[in-house]
Amino acid sequence: MSQPAVLLRSSLGEVLRAERMRQSMTLRELSTSARVSLGYISEIERGQKEASSELLASLCSALDVPLSTVLVQVSKHVAAQETKVITRPVVASAA
Amino acid sequence: MSQPAVLLRSSLGEVLRAERMRQSMTLRELSTSARVSLGYISEIERGQKEASSELLASLCSALDVPLSTVLVQVSKHVAAQETKVITRPVVASAA
Repeated sequence: MSQPAVLLRSSLGEVLRAERMRQSMTLRELSTSARVSLGYISEIERGQKEASSELLASLCSALDVPLSTVLVQVSKHVAAQETKVITRPVVASAA
Repeated sequence: MSQPAVLLRSSLGEVLRAERMRQSMTLRELSTSARVSLGYISEIERGQKEASSELLASLCSALDVPLSTVLVQVSKHVAAQETKVITRPVVASAA
């Protein structure tokens, strides 16, 4: 691939983090409610770890937000990233 | 949780399979193009395996469909499943 791929986990992490912040919920509170370790949630939010489907369901449940709503936000986030990737200058690869 | 969670991988698998079928692409063709084993793609389509973000990017690239488009379809699929889960009778749990 000539362009870097837009990765689901990066956008998913940012959306999950934004939703938690919007609710003024701490990592610790979400960790307790979702029964997922604090460190793992933190890594997911930073796009460093993949969230399994079961884990994602737990996080959505603990945030009291439907998975479909999260996915709509993620699709918008990814779409914005895709536009950036397409319009990025490709000077380096022309060398 | 009293209701079964709607899982991302099931919906993602169905959407990816539908997109491949729409393009009349065989599993073998997608496997070659995406450089992912045929068996693994088949398991992803059936919701039996999680697709890593990199793998998902490869599949989208091979299908020539933006990840954001796939995610919009997945969010709709998940939303339809969520409605089913919510409206399902809960007779058994009342026993």
